[in-house]
Amino acid sequence: MPAPIDFFFDFYSPYAYLASTRIDRIAERFDRAVVWRPIMLGPVFKVMGLKPLVEVPLLDDYARRDMDRCAREMGIPFRLPEGFPKAALAASRAFYWLQDRDPYQARVLATLVFAAIFSDGRDGSDPGVIADLVAPFGIERAQFLAAIQTPKAKERLRQETAAAIELGVCGSPFMIVDGEPFWGNDRMEQMQHWLESGGW
Amino acid sequence: MPAPIDFFFDFYSPYAYLASTRIDRIAERFDRAVVWRPIMLGPVFKVMGLKPLVEVPLLDDYARRDMDRCAREMGIPFRLPEGFPKAALAASRAFYWLQDRDPYQARVLATLVFAAIFSDGRDGSDPGVIADLVAPFGIERAQFLAAIQTPKAKERLRQETAAAIELGVCGSPFMIVDGEPFWGNDRMEQMQHWLESGGW
Repeated sequence: MPAPIDFFFDFYSPYAYLASTRIDRIAERFDRAVVWRPIMLGPVFKVMGLKPLVEVPLLDDYARRDMDRCAREMGIPFRLPEGFPKAALAASRAFYWLQDRDPYQARVLATLVFAAIFSDGRDGSDPGVIADLVAPFGIERAQFLAAIQTPKAKERLRQETAAAIELGVCGSPFMIVDGEPFWGNDRMEQMQHWLESGGW
Repeated sequence: MPAPIDFFFDFYSPYAYLASTRIDRIAERFDRAVVWRPIMLGPVFKVMGLKPLVEVPLLDDYARRDMDRCAREMGIPFRLPEGFPKAALAASRAFYWLQDRDPYQARVLATLVFAAIFSDGRDGSDPGVIADLVAPFGIERAQFLAAIQTPKAKERLRQETAAAIELGVCGSPFMIVDGEPFWGNDRMEQMQHWLESGGW
């Protein structure tokens, strides 16, 4: 089986949410697994000296319109959350914590988090909301809330973000296929073309 | 005939160069004319508080790779010019000066300028190079070089750039179809879809 596709994203990234609805389906067509890798875009933007999209004049208006248009084109429910963008620290730490126990549950959590933020209007930065999402897995609330506050859980996410920066991740979503980087939901078609053709 | 498509661009924008090779062909399919509108991206980025792509850490490496990959995918010759990005003041002023005399020649000049910069390795910021490009139109060199230095020629380009910013142009290329903005060579497919369907 060929190497998996790395799928880096920040849970509060609208374009990552859009990409998340199809990355597995695309990969499967090429016998590829997908490694879901949540990171914090804040430290990435800090390295780049950039502000979030919606804090940049001109880009703000355009991006809000474009996100909405892309979601409608894809037929996906989308509402830009209040207070966007927030830091998905709890969700991201929870993902890795869960992954070490049960990778399948972590994968399901990722989908639940994206839906909670961009479809259901829930506050994805609230640890309590993430605790609600993992409750169906039989995870005890107090234990979970403590687990994502440990130095180990915090350090893990810091390391994952640092590793992404080291690999050149400059936005979200960011895919790497056999060493070839693709940034953006709008590079998914090109990535598919790359997978089909073996590159050019 | 439906309203024309506005096509804003900076002559030193690699993605605008890529888009320039197909915008007319796409528009024609939908009985649309294209209004080519060169602007200076410098003042746009100043409003946005951004630096050029290749001066942003992480994005620099990615963008160089992506430009080249997109050009290869489209089968278009491409070489990032030395000293990129430069200010295409002379070319942009020349475009509008020529357009007032002969719109067809201005349209041809735009293609020649893009090719000179991204395919032939010429210095598109050099007024002498632009004078070479308009020479086949029978335009006398000294007259041309003086014409693009007049306060009127300078003011015209300033006004065109200001008008673009007023319309929300936040990058290059930037297309507007019936009031709907599309930013990037990577939104051309979506723009086509919009033209086909009348929007969604």
